[in-house]
Amino acid sequence: MSAVPTIRQLLVRPRLCSTALNSSSSPFLSYAPSLHFCPSSLRVLSSSSSPTLTQEEADGPVGKGSSLIDVNPPRGTRDFPPDDMRLRSWLFQNFREVSRILSFEEVDFPVLESEALFIRKAGEEITQQLYNFEDKGGRRVVLRPEITPSLARLVIKQGKSASLPLKWFTIGQCWRYERMTRGRRREHYQWNMDIFGVSKVRAEAELIQAVVLLFERLGIKSSDVGIRVSSRKVLQAVLQMYAIPENLFTQVCVIVDKLGKITREEMEKELVSLGVSTKAVNGIIEVLSLKSLSKLEEVLGSEGEAVSELKKLFSLAESYGYADWICFDASVVRGLAYYTGIVFEAFDRQGKLRAICGGGRYDRLLSTFGTDDIPACGFGFGDAVIVELLKEKALLPDLSHKVDDIVFPLDEVLDGTASSIASSLRKKGRSVDLVEDKRLKWVFKHAERIGASRLILVGNSEWERGAVRVKNLSTREEFEVKIDELD
Amino acid sequence: MSAVPTIRQLLVRPRLCSTALNSSSSPFLSYAPSLHFCPSSLRVLSSSSSPTLTQEEADGPVGKGSSLIDVNPPRGTRDFPPDDMRLRSWLFQNFREVSRILSFEEVDFPVLESEALFIRKAGEEITQQLYNFEDKGGRRVVLRPEITPSLARLVIKQGKSASLPLKWFTIGQCWRYERMTRGRRREHYQWNMDIFGVSKVRAEAELIQAVVLLFERLGIKSSDVGIRVSSRKVLQAVLQMYAIPENLFTQVCVIVDKLGKITREEMEKELVSLGVSTKAVNGIIEVLSLKSLSKLEEVLGSEGEAVSELKKLFSLAESYGYADWICFDASVVRGLAYYTGIVFEAFDRQGKLRAICGGGRYDRLLSTFGTDDIPACGFGFGDAVIVELLKEKALLPDLSHKVDDIVFPLDEVLDGTASSIASSLRKKGRSVDLVEDKRLKWVFKHAERIGASRLILVGNSEWERGAVRVKNLSTREEFEVKIDELD
Repeated sequence: MSAVPTIRQLLVRPRLCSTALNSSSSPFLSYAPSLHFCPSSLRVLSSSSSPTLTQEEADGPVGKGSSLIDVNPPRGTRDFPPDDMRLRSWLFQNFREVSRILSFEEVDFPVLESEALFIRKAGEEITQQLYNFEDKGGRRVVLRPEITPSLARLVIKQGKSASLPLKWFTIGQCWRYERMTRGRRREHYQWNMDIFGVSKVRAEAELIQAVVLLFERLGIKSSDVGIRVSSRKVLQAVLQMYAIPENLFTQVCVIVDKLGKITREEMEKELVSLGVSTKAVNGIIEVLSLKSLSKLEEVLGSEGEAVSELKKLFSLAESYGYADWICFDASVVRGLAYYTGIVFEAFDRQGKLRAICGGGRYDRLLSTFGTDDIPACGFGFGDAVIVELLKEKALLPDLSHKVDDIVFPLDEVLDGTASSIASSLRKKGRSVDLVEDKRLKWVFKHAERIGASRLILVGNSEWERGAVRVKNLSTREEFEVKIDELD
Repeated sequence: MSAVPTIRQLLVRPRLCSTALNSSSSPFLSYAPSLHFCPSSLRVLSSSSSPTLTQEEADGPVGKGSSLIDVNPPRGTRDFPPDDMRLRSWLFQNFREVSRILSFEEVDFPVLESEALFIRKAGEEITQQLYNFEDKGGRRVVLRPEITPSLARLVIKQGKSASLPLKWFTIGQCWRYERMTRGRRREHYQWNMDIFGVSKVRAEAELIQAVVLLFERLGIKSSDVGIRVSSRKVLQAVLQMYAIPENLFTQVCVIVDKLGKITREEMEKELVSLGVSTKAVNGIIEVLSLKSLSKLEEVLGSEGEAVSELKKLFSLAESYGYADWICFDASVVRGLAYYTGIVFEAFDRQGKLRAICGGGRYDRLLSTFGTDDIPACGFGFGDAVIVELLKEKALLPDLSHKVDDIVFPLDEVLDGTASSIASSLRKKGRSVDLVEDKRLKWVFKHAERIGASRLILVGNSEWERGAVRVKNLSTREEFEVKIDELD
């Protein structure tokens, strides 16, 4: 029986793939590809013996025996052992702190939602990959692919009891189901900030400031990352120029967003089959190539909302002081069907990674749920690409485990005393590890491993004097301290 | 069309039921039963028009129209609007702080797990109510009902790279699927603390200290709450006395745990049909009624592990200083199949609520997963009962929204200046709400609603002097402050 992975396993398991292999724009990618296999002392999964496994899962570690479980989480999902969890908590703490600074309130929703909330017919990737199923009561439910529809649902539910504008943020896990390929995952966490009830681009300006403040807190500079900004109203204006019916707008946006993933020819074909003339397709592509607002103004004129809103946003960016972070790029459309106005996405200037976050205005989402519309905009910021970027820029902080004290009784009869000392230090808020039945050598190694500041040795001779031996583990100094003076 | 709930709706919808109605021992109960219906200005769900709803869901708010969504989260699940979320965050922060003080590391797992991890045949309620389904790849998966099996899975996966003992905690959502009845929910959050690699009752003593420290932090006293302690080894000893085969042990525990939910007669019947003699059933019931360790010692003798471990635990409790919180109660068995030794549960001394938390030793779980066993124990502490208790004892803290500053330009031409002021305050870490297009009266009301400390008015005359008007909202004092002196 062997617990050593075969070459094939090393090649095909998603967690073993370098993220550099990924060219997709999907946010569902692993940030902590880790290579954990069972040590040989532990029996591991036999792929042929478990009744619940399909061949797709059978490329895990191989062993023999009839009652062995797979030690991996479900395909495409992650465990967070302590190191990964500290990284995640640190990132989420930054999300929360920026949200607090912007005066947003945190909300949350069930990870399981009604499928009806996500059924849209515009051909979006996100709705094609729904992690949906029927529950035992015959209900169509999904592990949510995104959080915006839940936010909108809660806004409707709160109704008049909530005073607009609402500024809400949330951090939650999102899911998708698709055939697994290299390095892609089925879940990721997403920070969302959304403003309901502000129709002016002030809302977008605030959201972009939040994104910039987050980058700055993480040590990322505007020379590392930029934020591309455009507006769906640009495409809308082009459609009007070519007299394309308004009801095609959403589908055109979803198709146009695929450029880069599909060829220009494929995109043209999709647009033409939707009923867009070849002339209009060329017009669309021409406008999408624009990278300056003045050029856009030349093409569309200065009267329309597209140009005036973008100009206002860039002017506010100057006032906020983040103008060097943003640039106009008409090719930004974003893939979600419901965006109606300004859209934006953050990207690494080296062009190695997928979009770091994306957002935009969605003023007409609520009416698709059968209620009156409320102007709204927001963004989603995943937990995967940002960590890849931080790793690449060597900006990950030291997040090792830290503990204040280790209390160690040198004799079994002193375990009560050790309990009482640990308890008293803990009541003062100190983090205390209580160790017994180990050799002193192990305790010192352990102290290093858990980043302990002090070692408190409870020995018989000191105890007789009402004292303990305290070793400061950074200075290596040792003192005898009276138990009631310990703090 | 009416958005007002009918009497029937008020009676049957779980979120509208008083928690006092619940007599079940299940942790899946709502802590924030809230009554949110759509205002009449918003159209709401027509129960007959949605294709995705079953009759079971059709007792929600009723409206007309063909494209209306249900504004409620899936049956048995909760949204967390800002007030509820602040309460949850505060509670979780206390869970995390106690875990830190005990020197535990945080870990996390996917909410979706392989069903195989939870398939146990002892007849536990938790496995009978699995929220399980088949995914599109034909895999049997579950929304996890508990977290311990995932913890065990990760311990196995870490293998020798992790040095024992491992002290891990996690806070995560757990799910169950059952026919909905009053006030019961399908999800709850659970704080878990688990120790792997410590065979002595020191581990249990540490876990119970964590529970007590949590109570103390929340303002709960030992006169409000107690912790009942026993050991599965008590039952094991009784089974040995009556020569009942060891392989019946787990099932006997699961049946005996139901006492209170089922009658004594039903329990007897179940035990007898398992092959336990009536005489042994009487012996079991007699021992389970014991409430003192000395009585237990009289019955079982002082030699066995049951008595010696319990005595050691009570002695350690004296040293830690929490002896007044715990009591021996042989009737505590806990419902999870895998417990093998000490078991405990916290209860309110008024006897109104279900168990607040429960835990125990599970030294033989890992071998059911096909690996060598590691001694382990842990507890699960739900987010529902504790909040009920805190409400009842009036111990919920003031958690209203708080913001440092509101920046308000009195003239539209000053929106750039306002942006720059808000931005500069935010860079100093202050939480700043930027408001425009409102009347001053609204702004003051808003300031009260969001708990703002200062109002910063950006007006033309002050602006000409390079200043703003600052109003301290608690003292009502007003000052003119130079913009570059604002902090």
